[in-house]
Parts: sequence; structure tokens; C-alpha cells
Amino acid sequence: MNLTLLHPRLRDEKELRISKVREQMTLNGLDAILVSAPSNLFYLAGGMFRGYVYIQSKEECIYFLIPPCECEAPDVRIIHKPEQIADMLEEMEITLPLTLGLEMDELTYNETERLKKCFPSSRVMDSTMVLRRARECKTPFEQDLMRVDGLKQANVYSEIKRMYVEGMTDLELQIRIEQKLRQEGCLGYLRASGKRMELNMGSLLAGDNADIPSPYDFSMGGAGADPSLPAGASGAIIPPHSAVMVDMNGGFNGYQTDMTRVWTVGSVSDLAHKAHNCSIRILHKLEETALPGVRIGDLYKIAAEMVDEDNLKDYFMGHNHHVKFIGHGVGIELNEIPVIMERNNDPLKLGMTLAIEPKFVIPGVGAVGIENTYIVTENGLENITVLKEELEEFE
Amino acid sequence: MNLTLLHPRLRDEKELRISKVREQMTLNGLDAILVSAPSNLFYLAGGMFRGYVYIQSKEECIYFLIPPCECEAPDVRIIHKPEQIADMLEEMEITLPLTLGLEMDELTYNETERLKKCFPSSRVMDSTMVLRRARECKTPFEQDLMRVDGLKQANVYSEIKRMYVEGMTDLELQIRIEQKLRQEGCLGYLRASGKRMELNMGSLLAGDNADIPSPYDFSMGGAGADPSLPAGASGAIIPPHSAVMVDMNGGFNGYQTDMTRVWTVGSVSDLAHKAHNCSIRILHKLEETALPGVRIGDLYKIAAEMVDEDNLKDYFMGHNHHVKFIGHGVGIELNEIPVIMERNNDPLKLGMTLAIEPKFVIPGVGAVGIENTYIVTENGLENITVLKEELEEFE
Repeated sequence: MNLTLLHPRLRDEKELRISKVREQMTLNGLDAILVSAPSNLFYLAGGMFRGYVYIQSKEECIYFLIPPCECEAPDVRIIHKPEQIADMLEEMEITLPLTLGLEMDELTYNETERLKKCFPSSRVMDSTMVLRRARECKTPFEQDLMRVDGLKQANVYSEIKRMYVEGMTDLELQIRIEQKLRQEGCLGYLRASGKRMELNMGSLLAGDNADIPSPYDFSMGGAGADPSLPAGASGAIIPPHSAVMVDMNGGFNGYQTDMTRVWTVGSVSDLAHKAHNCSIRILHKLEETALPGVRIGDLYKIAAEMVDEDNLKDYFMGHNHHVKFIGHGVGIELNEIPVIMERNNDPLKLGMTLAIEPKFVIPGVGAVGIENTYIVTENGLENITVLKEELEEFE
Repeated sequence: MNLTLLHPRLRDEKELRISKVREQMTLNGLDAILVSAPSNLFYLAGGMFRGYVYIQSKEECIYFLIPPCECEAPDVRIIHKPEQIADMLEEMEITLPLTLGLEMDELTYNETERLKKCFPSSRVMDSTMVLRRARECKTPFEQDLMRVDGLKQANVYSEIKRMYVEGMTDLELQIRIEQKLRQEGCLGYLRASGKRMELNMGSLLAGDNADIPSPYDFSMGGAGADPSLPAGASGAIIPPHSAVMVDMNGGFNGYQTDMTRVWTVGSVSDLAHKAHNCSIRILHKLEETALPGVRIGDLYKIAAEMVDEDNLKDYFMGHNHHVKFIGHGVGIELNEIPVIMERNNDPLKLGMTLAIEPKFVIPGVGAVGIENTYIVTENGLENITVLKEELEEFE
């Protein structure tokens, strides 16, 4: 397997990531964690594999690979089942941990119980948040990967205004965008935590379909094309004087950016323009005010106040159904922490990557508002999904 | 939400599915199960929603929906969190179960623990297999949906031989097929159980890339285009005299068929032809012999014997790395039971839907062999992915 972080030239990057994990382990009183959720394995190895990473709070870190996965590196051991891990640790004269972390919000009940039994003398605790917190602030290396995603996604989005043909359905337009994304290197797979985000390559919402609620955790809904996948485009012809919101896959390298732009078919109502411009103004305001140390819930409050001033509350983050967040962390997974919602008391931190998406649903028009992915810097938010933000008519 | 099985006109279909679940509950001594895994919710409701289905072994079945999900039907109740379920059952004068099943191989540890606490007086058991067994044999209604998938998938596959252009990469060809599948109504989402199947819309393997192992549970490997998603096409130019195996998404309606065909760039070795023809002969043999009651492991044995007779063992189900199954159940999820492997002692049953894929990897050529999706009938296997099976050169 190509586990890039196990190459000697990326040793420093690997050590940096492990040190971030260890910092969280110390805060949580964990002697060791056994990592097995795919996104976390990728974070620690720079490539996907089958197996486990055993991280000790003080001593070395061991990568346990299950065949056919293999990789030549001093910290790699081959196992066939997790039951071998404890014995191998003892052979390496490593003391088994008093407290062991497992990703109990990622692994199934049965997977967790199986791993627990491999460490009968350890007190097992939930390490889901250890990994999420460690991944929350991206390293400079990760930030650069996400900048590449943003450039590529924005580049594809810059061509969307020429893709529309009169009379086409929302799905036909979506398929053209999917194809262009794939041609430019998008991997096409939407990696998310949990089972509340099922979709092909993202969402395109035209007209009133934007107001149809969905069972998923996406910020906007949509009927989808089939009851088995009720989100996004429905297959209906895009009506004149409607808005088309494109919020599609920006994953090119194991990381992803999340970006939304809106085009219109002909003119749309003043209300739609007003709401779209409010979204842009919110983002510009947050770009300046969202400094490290600022309470995350305050970002939501700033947005909500600007929405109130414009009398747009009825349309904010949905019309029939309102969601309670305006953004989220993004990186290896689409739905990382932090969630930007009013009650989030945590502070912004340097290197967090946030997708912020103040959106509106205007009856009779559709969804408007934009979304950018940002890196939290000392000077505010760095937009890594740069592209014209105003409402624009399809050519 | 469009929960099709809650429409009065599909009442019989809903009752049939619930009766299949109840049959398994009885075998497992379960008074009730609380269903919450997405694929099982879809099975029981005919549409995806957020919530739970509470099935009692004897009395009525209740659908608990979480807003914004809603549906007008007598057996629907609205809740905001699972902690309300037990109280609502008591209000309905339903006795809480002595034994309760939860899908412990589908839900996370934390989800399971949360639900356990909602039923403190019940003995909680794993109901994963109850649902998998109930879903294993498809109803005539489900079989018809899968026949539609097979027709659509075969129709798209019939155009592949004209999609190749000299000098194109494996990914370029794959993207063309993806686009055609999407245009013909493929939902694009590969629904699978667990986290061991991550991929966009399936796999295309050209030349020796077929022999590169992958960490995933797919029958074949491939390097993929990025270390974060190491399976399938790699982005390399398709070499002359190589085989191109197409095993892509056949999901159009919540169900899916699984189908593989192979095309070649120019001529390929006699060994490749021999192996491909062996695959076809294995399937034709199994189409006749795989009758209800036959031990599933015997299908594997029949295949392995035919492979041995042709001296093709070194290439069977991989060359560098061999997988130990030649097929699997398929339906709502790509990786359903049964697994067709030697040690499977269960009998074939009427209405099972099987993807059978005896494949070979020939060094210097690539992957050959085909895959069809079948319904187990009284007369043997009904192929629902009908299309020319022979090796064919691209035009």
C-alpha cells in the first residue's frame, strides 16, 4: 500500500500528527489508543489500509497491517486479526495500557466489543473525540492539500455557467458537473462520518425542490431522484426564473473543500437577490471577525443578527424546515468538527478548516447563498474556494 | 417523505416483509426489535427516513419518524429522540419486550448503548442477522425492481465497446461509463454494509492494475487514483493487448445488480481467453445446478474444480492475492448474505439474489471473467444481467 506518511521524507509530518493525537490523549487520561476507523487510519498513515494504529501516550507508535496490505517500514507489523495485537505488544516488551481508547462513535458495537476483549486488563474509554480534536486543526501540509482541492473545485465551478442548456433537468446539469469534476481529478467519493450522509457526488438544487426536507445531515434538502436516496436533484426540468444551487464534491486527494455557488435561469426576484447578497455580506464579515480565540457560537450569532436586520429570518437555512448550523469543519471527512451553531462555546483555533454556508430558501425561486471553505489564520479566515460570489445568470 | 410501503396500495408487500422479519425473530427468541440501520429502514418503509421501526413478534409494527421526516399513516408516530419510544409504547398499552434486538453489527457502540438505555428492563440481543436473513430472499416485488436494474445496467454495458478511444486512460473510460450510467438513471451511490467498501461508482481495471491488492472487500483490487481511495482505476493509459474489466454501479431504484464484463484492447493471450471462457462455463454450470436446497459452499467447490481441471488455479480470484469467495448476495446493499465461499454450509433458498463472479487475473493482460446477478428459482438461476459474455475487442 502507498502509506505516504511512512516514507522517511514525511517523517516530520507523521510525528506532528501523532503529537497532536497524544496531546488529546493526555487531556483524556489515555495511556494508549487503538485506531481503526478508516478516516483516522488515513490521517495517521497518509493512505488507506486495513488494520490498526496503536498509539501510546509516551512510547512508539505501531502500525498493524492486515494482508494483503503491506508496507516496508520499521514501525509496521503484519497481523491477521486484532486478537494478535496484545501478544505482539508483549513480545515487544510494551506494557499493556491501563486505559485504552477505542473509537466508539465510529466502530460498530460488535467491533468495539471484539477489540475490548483483546485488552481484558485495560479500562476502555471512548477516543472518538481524541481523533476528531486532533484532526480539527490542520497541519500546514494538510492545509496545502486542501488549497489544491479548493483551486480544482473553483476551476470546475468556473465553467458551470456555460453548462446549462434551456429545458434541461436538474439531474442532467448535475451529471455534466459530475463529469467535469471527475475529469479534473475529483475522486467522486463523498467521505463522511456516520450514516447520515448518503449521496453520489453532492447536491444540486433547482427551484422549489430546495424546500423539500431530507432525512440526511446536509444543510439543504431536496427530494432526490428516488425514495431510496431522498436528497438533492429530483429529475425535474429547471424552471425559468429559478435559482440553481450547486454544492458538489471537492475531494481530489483524500481531503476535500466544500463550496456552493448559485446560478439563475433568467431573472429572479429582488428577495432572492437580497438574500444572496446577505449571505455574501455575512461571509465577508466573518472573514474579518473570525480570529483565533473567538467563540464559535458567536459566528452563528453574527450571521443570525445580520439575517434579522435584513428581515430574512423566515428563509434562513431553510423555509419549511430550518437547520440550526451555518457551517462545519471539513477535511478528510465532509462533516468534521466544529459545528458552527449558536451553542458551541469552543474557541476558534489556528488551522481549523471551516465550510461556512449561510443559505436561504426563497419560495418560488429556490436556494440562494454561498459557501466557502476557509482556513483560520492569525488575520482571520483565508478563503480557499475563491470564485465570483454574486448571483449570475446562466449563459 | 415518500415511504412507499406505507401507502395502502403496498400494504401486502409491507406485511410480507414484516412477516419475514418476524419469522427470524421467532427463531432467535426476540420479542421485539428496534430497527435503525438505514438499509433496514429502507427495506421496511420503501423509502429512506430518519427514525426507527419497532417490530413486535406478535402485535403491530410502529414507525417512529424524526422531523423533518413525516408521513401520514396509521402506524406512524413522530418522535424527537429515541428516549421517547418506550414511554410512547406504554401509552399505547404495549408491554415492553423481555428480549429486544438491536443491529449491533450496523450501529456504532455509542448508538447501541444509547438505545439499550431506552429499554432498561429488556435483555438486549444482536438482531443484525435477523434483518440480513429476512432480506436474503427477495419478495417478487423486490425481484422485479432488481430485474429493472439488470435491464438498465446491461443496456449501458452494451454501449461500452464503442466508448474506448485509443490512448485513453482507465479513468477516462470509467468516467464515460459513469456518465452514461447516470444519464440512464443510475443513482450513483454504492450502498454497502460496513466501511470496507469505499468507491465512487464501481471499479474499472485495465491491465496489470488488476493485480494490485486493495484494503477493501471488493473481489478485485486496483491501485486507485489516490492513496486515500486505493481501489480500481489508477489513471494509467490502457495498454495494448490488455483486458479491461468493468464492474460498475447497477443501482437505479434502491436495489442494485452487480455485473462484470471484459473488453480487450487488441488481441490478448490464449491464456486470457481460456480463463475467460472457464468463467463463462462455470456460470453456465451453476445456472443449472444451483437449485434451492443445494449447499452454498458446493457452488464454490464446483467452480474450484472446473478451475483445477483447466489448470488455472494460480490465476483464480487474483494472482498476487487470492480472495476466498466467488460471489455474494446483492440487493439493497452490494455486500449482502450469503457469501459464496467453500465453508458456507447454508442451503440455497428460493428468491435469493446472487452476484456470482468467477474471475481471473492474468499477468501482463489483466482481469478476465464475468459476473452476473441471478435470482434463485425452482429451475436454477435466472440471469437478470443478460448481455453477451464472451471477450470482445473494443471497436
